[in-house]
This record gives sequence, C-alpha cells and structure tokens, in this order.
Amino acid sequence: MNKIVLAQIDTIAGDIDNNALKISECIKKAKEQNADLIVFPELVLMGYPFGDIFVRHKSLIERQLSALNEITNLTQNITALIGFVEPTKSAGKKPFYNSVAIIKNREIIDTARKILLPNYGEFNDYRYFESSKDKPAVFELNGEKFGVIICEDSFNHKAFFKNKCIYDIDPVSEIMKQKPDTIINCSCSPSRCAKEFVKNSLFSSISKEYGIHYVYVNKSGYADNLSFDGASRIYDKTGNLILRAKSFEEDFIITSDYKGVINQIPKGAEKEINLENFELNYTNDLDRTYQSIVFAIKEYFVKNGFSKAVLGLSGGLDSSVCAVLLADALGSENVWGISMPSRITSKESKNDAEILAKNLGINFFEIPLPSAIDTMKSMLNSAFENINSDKYDKSTTMENLQARTRATVLWSISNEYKNMLPVATSDKSEAYIGYATVNGDMSGGFAPIADVTKTKLFALADFINKNRKTKNVIPKSVLDKPPGAELKINPKTGKPVCAEEDNMPYEFLDEIIWLIENKNFGKNELINHKFIYEQKYNITFEQKQEWINKFYRKSKCAVYKWHILPPSVITDVHSINSIEYHQPIISSV
Amino acid sequence: MNKIVLAQIDTIAGDIDNNALKISECIKKAKEQNADLIVFPELVLMGYPFGDIFVRHKSLIERQLSALNEITNLTQNITALIGFVEPTKSAGKKPFYNSVAIIKNREIIDTARKILLPNYGEFNDYRYFESSKDKPAVFELNGEKFGVIICEDSFNHKAFFKNKCIYDIDPVSEIMKQKPDTIINCSCSPSRCAKEFVKNSLFSSISKEYGIHYVYVNKSGYADNLSFDGASRIYDKTGNLILRAKSFEEDFIITSDYKGVINQIPKGAEKEINLENFELNYTNDLDRTYQSIVFAIKEYFVKNGFSKAVLGLSGGLDSSVCAVLLADALGSENVWGISMPSRITSKESKNDAEILAKNLGINFFEIPLPSAIDTMKSMLNSAFENINSDKYDKSTTMENLQARTRATVLWSISNEYKNMLPVATSDKSEAYIGYATVNGDMSGGFAPIADVTKTKLFALADFINKNRKTKNVIPKSVLDKPPGAELKINPKTGKPVCAEEDNMPYEFLDEIIWLIENKNFGKNELINHKFIYEQKYNITFEQKQEWINKFYRKSKCAVYKWHILPPSVITDVHSINSIEYHQPIISSV
Repeated sequence: MNKIVLAQIDTIAGDIDNNALKISECIKKAKEQNADLIVFPELVLMGYPFGDIFVRHKSLIERQLSALNEITNLTQNITALIGFVEPTKSAGKKPFYNSVAIIKNREIIDTARKILLPNYGEFNDYRYFESSKDKPAVFELNGEKFGVIICEDSFNHKAFFKNKCIYDIDPVSEIMKQKPDTIINCSCSPSRCAKEFVKNSLFSSISKEYGIHYVYVNKSGYADNLSFDGASRIYDKTGNLILRAKSFEEDFIITSDYKGVINQIPKGAEKEINLENFELNYTNDLDRTYQSIVFAIKEYFVKNGFSKAVLGLSGGLDSSVCAVLLADALGSENVWGISMPSRITSKESKNDAEILAKNLGINFFEIPLPSAIDTMKSMLNSAFENINSDKYDKSTTMENLQARTRATVLWSISNEYKNMLPVATSDKSEAYIGYATVNGDMSGGFAPIADVTKTKLFALADFINKNRKTKNVIPKSVLDKPPGAELKINPKTGKPVCAEEDNMPYEFLDEIIWLIENKNFGKNELINHKFIYEQKYNITFEQKQEWINKFYRKSKCAVYKWHILPPSVITDVHSINSIEYHQPIISSV
Repeated sequence: MNKIVLAQIDTIAGDIDNNALKISECIKKAKEQNADLIVFPELVLMGYPFGDIFVRHKSLIERQLSALNEITNLTQNITALIGFVEPTKSAGKKPFYNSVAIIKNREIIDTARKILLPNYGEFNDYRYFESSKDKPAVFELNGEKFGVIICEDSFNHKAFFKNKCIYDIDPVSEIMKQKPDTIINCSCSPSRCAKEFVKNSLFSSISKEYGIHYVYVNKSGYADNLSFDGASRIYDKTGNLILRAKSFEEDFIITSDYKGVINQIPKGAEKEINLENFELNYTNDLDRTYQSIVFAIKEYFVKNGFSKAVLGLSGGLDSSVCAVLLADALGSENVWGISMPSRITSKESKNDAEILAKNLGINFFEIPLPSAIDTMKSMLNSAFENINSDKYDKSTTMENLQARTRATVLWSISNEYKNMLPVATSDKSEAYIGYATVNGDMSGGFAPIADVTKTKLFALADFINKNRKTKNVIPKSVLDKPPGAELKINPKTGKPVCAEEDNMPYEFLDEIIWLIENKNFGKNELINHKFIYEQKYNITFEQKQEWINKFYRKSKCAVYKWHILPPSVITDVHSINSIEYHQPIISSV
C-alpha cells in the first residue's frame, strides 16, 4: 500500500516564492520518510484566499507557473498533488482553472480541474475560474488507483444531499465511473458553526457507499476573515475515520496503511447542530468558536507584523471576553487592558475590569477621562454656537464623545508603541443594530467577537470560566449584570442605562438575527412567527411587533457601520461580514 | 412606426412596492401619450445593485412576482419591457435568471433572459443568476420585429471586440439570426472613465453592421459606490445617434419615428481616452468626473435621509474641491466648512479656507484646536507612563491626534444636528499609500474624492475654476502650494512638512497607480518600465527604485484602510473600492 503524506500547510496569497519554498521543504521531508505520495491543499501554490490580486498583478501567474516547474523538478521518486491557478489559454473562456497538478517523477502527468465553482457566501470561484468539462483525473500508483477532486466537487453528491443539490453535475459519481480505490479531496474549507457534522457525515457516507478510501486535505490558517481549521483526514472503506490531522494548526502527517493518529477536534464540533429551531443552548459550538477566534487573532497579528494588543476594559462582557481571547492568543504579557472611567462609570465596573486583568495576568492601568471630556465638550459647545441648524431632541453626542475619546487613546498608544494593535470589542448583536460608536468602540485593528451574538457570548464566557486552565477568570458579576455601555444616566433610576432598555432583550434580538440568517425570514415572516422568547416570557403581540420594527429601523441605519467594521473572523453559520454577505447601503432592507 | 418610451428611471434595491408604483406611473403616462412600447432598465423591479438581499430575505422574490402580476394587468393597449429577478424553478441550476418580461395586453408573451453574466469588477451576476440557454427573445409589434438583449449580452460582439471577447457566445449575432428590425438593450451600466466612447462606438457599429435600430435604456441613479449615468439612446440604421436622454438624471423620453432630442453628455466624454500611455492631460474626463461625483453626493444624501454636510476646511486642495462638490450637490446653505487650526497650521492656509468658503457662500467658522490637543496630550502622556514596551523612533501619534480630534468635532456635530453628515476628504493617491489617519481625515459618512488621484484633482480644481458659473472659487494659492496635511514641522526648514517630502512626487505616485490599474503591472514591470516622470525630470534609477519600493511598503500597510473607507463613488477606470476590487489584507501585494 502507498505511503501518503497529508501536507496540511498554510500559504499566503501571492507570496509565491515563500509558498514554493514551504512546499519544496514538505516534499523533501516526505522523500526522506520514503513517502510515495504527498497531497497539498487546494490552490496551495498561489495561496488562498487571494481576492483579485492575480487579476490586477498579472505577473503573479507567470511567477507561479515557473515555481511549479521548479517544484516539478523535485519529484524524483515521489508523486505530489499541488493546487494552483492554471491559465485556460483559450478565448471565450474565463482566464483560469482551479487546478491540481499531478506530478510524478519530474513530470506533470495529469491535471485535475475543479468542476463546481462556488460563488456564494465567502466563495468567489466563478469570478476567476472556468468550470472544467474534462473527464475527472484518475492516476495509478503502485497498483492503487486514485481519483482527484477539489473541495466543492464533493459537495453535490446526490445520494447524500438529495434535493438540496445546487448543481447539475455530481463529480463524485462521475469520477467513480473510473473505479478508483481512493478519492483524494484537496480543499480550502473555512471553519464555521455546524460545518464539521456535515463534512464528517458526507465524507464517511461516500467512502462507505463506494467501498473506497477517502482522503481529505484541508488548509490550516487564517486570512481575510476566515479561519481554516485543517483537520485533514482519512476514512476507510467502511466509512470509519482512521486518521485525522490537527485542528487550527499546520500539520504534516504520514500514513503507510492509511491508519494513524486521530487528533482531537474541538469538543462538540462533531455533533449535529439544530438549524431548525433557535436554541440558546450553544454547547456544541463553544469550544470551536473559542479555538477559531484565538487562532484568528494569533494569525492576524503575526501575519501583519503585530505581537501586542491594547483594549479598553469596561468591566462589561464584550471587553472581558475579548481580553481572555487576546491573552490566550498572544500571551497575557502582550495584552494591555486600560480602564477609562468617565463620570458615569460605576465603581463595580471599574472593580470588575481590574479583577479580570489580575485574573488574566495582563497589563492593566486606569486613565480617567473627565478632564479630556470636559475640554472637548467646551470646544464642541463653542462649535455648536456657530451652527444655526435644527438639533436632535435627544442627541447621542456626549455618549459618543466618551467612546471616541477612548478609541483615540487606544489608537494613539498603537501609534506610539511598536507592533501594538488596538482591538475593537463590538459583538454581533450590537453590530446588527448599530449599537456601537463610529470611531469609538467599533473601531480597532481587529474585532475578535464581531460574529458572536450577545447570548452566545454569555455562553462562551461561561465555557471559558469552566474549561480554561485557570478557572473563573471572568468575574461572576460581569456575567450577572445586564449589558450596557455606561454612556448615559437614566434620569428615572439615576443609574447608567442598560443596553436592553435602549434596544430590546438580547434573547429576542438574537432570535431575530438567527431567523434571518438561518431561515431567510423577512419582516412579515418574523411578525407571523411564534418566537421562543414569546412563549417563554408571555409578551404581547404589540410588544413583539414594536421590537421587530425597531430592529429594522436600527439595522437599516447600521449597514453603513457593517461596511467599515474592522477585520474579524467569521464563526457563525452566517454573518454580516462583507466577505460573506453583500448588503448595499442603499436598499429597503 | 411604433411610438416608444425610454423610461430611464431609478429604483431602489428591494423596495418593491415603490418601484412597482414608479413603473406603473410611467406606464400610465406612456398610455396617455399613446405609446406602443415602453422600455425600462435591467432589473428595474427589484432595483439594482441589490447585493445579496433577496438571497437572505427570500420573501422579496414573492413580493416582486406579485408586483409583476399587478403591473401586467396595467398593460392594456401597450407593450412593456420590465427587468426582474426570475426564479429558475429547477434543480441543478442557480436559483434565478436575470430577465426582462415582455408584457403585451395584460399578458407576459415572452421572457428575455440574460446570457452573459459578468462577474468581474463591480459585477456579480453569476453569484445569483443562471445563464440562459434559450433562443433569444424576439417579438413583433405592428409589423416591426424587436430583439431584446440585456446589458452585457451586447458586450461580446465579435465583429467589434475581436480577440478581446471574454465569452464564447455572441448574443448579438445570435439574435440577429431571427432578423429583428430593432435591437433593444435593457441595461444597468455605471458611469466610469473611458466607458462612453466604447459604448457609443459599439452600439453605433452594431446598428450600422446590421442596418437596424439600436435602442439602449440605462438606469439613472447612484447606489453602492456606483453612479449610473442614464444617457439612454437610439441609433438609426446607419449607426447615427438620433436620440439621447439626459445624463445623471431620470428621464422619460418618447419617440414616434425614433428621432428626438439629443441631450448633452458631459463635455469630452465621447472622446477616446488614451489607455495605452499615462498622461497628465485629464481634459476629456473632468466634466464627467465632476457630474458623476455631484450626482453621487446628491443621491447618497437624499437616499439616506441627509441634506446637510459638515467638513473640515484646511485650505488644502482635497477639502477645497470637496467643498465645491458638496455645495454644488446640496446647495451652499447646506454645507458647513470648519477651519480647525492647530499650532502648526499656517496663516495662509487659514486665509485660503476662509476665502474659499466666502467664494462658495457656504457656512464657515473657526474652532482652534490647541486647548483640546493639549489636554488630550497630557492624558496620553500619563497613559504612556504606564506602558513598558518599545516605542517607535519616530511616532505619528501627535500628527494623528490632530486629525482624530478634527474628526471627533465633525462627527459630534453630525450627532447633534439633524440630517447632517460629516464628509471625509481623502483622495485616491493618499488612500493607496495609507497617507490618511484612521478615525481622522479618512473617516466620514461619505468620501466624495476617494477615487480621484491627486494630479487629476489638480486638473479638476482648474476645470472647476474655469467652468463653474462663478469662476475661480478655489483660491489660486490653494492650487499653487505643495499639498500637505500640516500635521508636523520639518525641523530643517521650520515649515510644515509637505506630503511629497513624506512620500514621493504625486506625479510619480499617480503614474504607478495608473500602470497598476490600467496595465496590470507588478513590481518588476514597474521597475523595468520607463516612466514619463523619469524622462521629464531625469531622475536616477536608484531614485525610481526607492520610490517604487516605498510605494509597495506603504500600500501593503494601507490595505486595512481600504477596507474601512467610507462609501464613495467609483469614477476612474479602475479603483481600490472594495465593491470593485477584492484585495485581501493578508497577501504579498
């Protein structure tokens, strides 16, 4: 039987020289270990995701092809599968194929070309690639027959997806007509909620159905809002998982009889997640969410030349969870948490921020805002004296001024100190309705939790407190108090206004978001839908309607903010991240 | 001969009820004028550009189909061509066609479906639509035979584009096999530099080649960074333009013998623009650039519920040109220009700002920054005392603090006053190399000149001074002095550092940008290219190389800023606006 290497590596878009070097080193290592075959992820030589870079910088293609030649020369006594961008070279076609070169003994013996070109969500394959009309590529090695498919080509298998197929062709059935013993799938598949269960069931069922081995090699790495989780693997002829590479980490894994180590994936990730009904039980996705974000922070910082983070610590849920994620990704000594109390900030909040910082062991200090706020306020008042125009009855100017002054402090620190990035602490629920200040709390070099809703964030905080090596780092009072930005005082209570007073209960808001993202509900469907929240808290129909109307009013104005959100990481089933979701600012929804 | 209406209207994405109402009113008006046929732009009923809204909000499709039914009922004694999103209703296909319903006497007699689905630049047709395999739609009306095509379907005509064709099929040749007397092209085609010449030549040559009438109906309106210029038109059987609707304005134009009024298009727009060689002579695109931006501002403000703008006036080129464009779009009484001098601001700059404001008749006052800067500075210094980490040798903290404080003033004003939007004054040359401050001058609700390079902006300022009804509104000294943000003092000269000292000459920078965007040059090609600048100023090879390296170093770090640029308007041949160009933050270029 063949000795196969799953080369689960990360390469950078357009960085051809370094990508080629990394690939070459893997081939060398594989040869040293007497491997017969080495398999790399989809598009490994160009590096993925690449956006339009090789469209605008045409020489990247030439450089890539010459690098492929150089790699070809290294394949004496080994077969290598290398994903690359292949020019179609004929008029009347898109300029490129998404291809895998099958290289054996210093010769490209065949080229597998992707047939199904996803062009939804974060995928833009059809923007660049022509769909292959060729017979799928099959090659023989030491008496074993391998069929090569590329990522999406596996995801239209009619026996599995049935009426949910979105393409006409099923490349898996097509390639099986040539009766390979083993299918190899080269992929770039980002980690998202509810994806692992589908992948695992699909691959297992294909190998079982045909009685073949199924080898899946996936990219590991973060880029462009996507965490690729790796977790490359092999299923045996009866559909059993018999080998799995690491998750959220590069790996180089070799097998002689297909069996090998089965690395852990995040706890719960293998379970089916209920997409038929919203439930506040996020259990099965918390470990994956945590790992995916920590990995994204690590990678984003390193790849952009940063090693340190600075964030505002308010003593609230968002900044507390962000601080933990940053400390775990960068090391607590590389995180600065700053408490910036205004006159409205409560003593409890200040305390909570300090306790959290101590628990985490991150750098911490306090900078009181009042003097800066007062000076800015008097400057603004003299500006206002000069403007003769209608004022809002209730303006948010002074609330936003606090948030903006805090952001100015954080950005100034990052301008002053080497390799330090300010972090935006906005969460997904708030982003949806624009409950974040432009140039304020939504501003930063990276936004770790921008795709985590508030209710899920509470669950994540609880998960962190229970499962992190140091238990209970997030003070209980942070989890117990109602979320709120502490930017204004409610004149009736004399206390800071909490967010749910301004908006609506987060449980309800998150249920709306879930229904839109998972059920494609419009406003009418929402109004007619029986919410879980409704049944639980027995609210009136008018109340429900009011909140839904408020949601649409606010989210329509928030779209501008979605467009200027900092880089983040997509982690939910769907998101408002513009890499995935295209929402025009001018529209009725 | 048939009496035809070109209904050059603007509709809003997803706003089905209002779009249907607008369409109905046009049909009613056309009937009152005894028209035989009324033609609307592509996708008029859904409203374009729509992003993913009907993918996520599925009920929009149902609502649209029922609106189409209602419209169908209004077509007694008239034929109407209505663009809409048509479900494909079969498995193994993309869910929709991009279609035009041909409605005659209360019945949809045929449906034209788009064949060529552009998926480059700002276009994402293939993301949603299946390419039609049907015979192209031809219908008869009073003995005249009409062939219906949709936008891109006209742009692969082999006799015209020759080896530049990017698709296999040429729908124009296909439809001509059915020998129509007239081709109707329903379009949504945004205005860009160098586009009008191609459109005019193409349509004229098709009508001449086949001896047919060519009717082009285009959307007018701005949305999602795109200005659609309308300018719908008819060519006669010999290729002569015999009717043209207004540019950058809705229009309803009726013809009984195809002839009619020929409205002006922007001066110079019909000329061919040299895309083989960079030239500083922007003459033929200045009027179009001006009109396109003024239109975009007007539309962006109205459609988002704003009527007033506030901007910082530095006395420099960028803010001066922005002020003129805003005044012309919104009325000078609705624009507030604020001078916010710091200690570094020169007297000349303050004077220039004031003179410009007076010339334009906009609201103007001054708010000195020093006291606010001083307070912030002392707050920052006490923060810095608490941070034990490596500092930059030369930090930009204090320069950025000035820019951020100015932006805080502008945003605070917009938070305080009704319907007022702060405007970002960054230009394209600066955006490319990130020479703009996050949360500072690059921040705002709209960025009018983000797709205009600095050298073109000088030409535009000159054009404005010569051609605007009030001549020379921009003071000569603004055009004469070297651009610079006046954020720091050069210790050698004792004067504020000008931008070209920090970066490189704008003439050289803009030539790099032009070569990347129009010739797809990479770094090596740039280094080997003989620049016009080089010949003109006789610089050394080392100097050229140093600037090119600096460009790449700076633009790589600037990509993050490209992603958080405010909404703007694409006006150049190519841009870095993320609606058109997908650039990952993590990449080698």
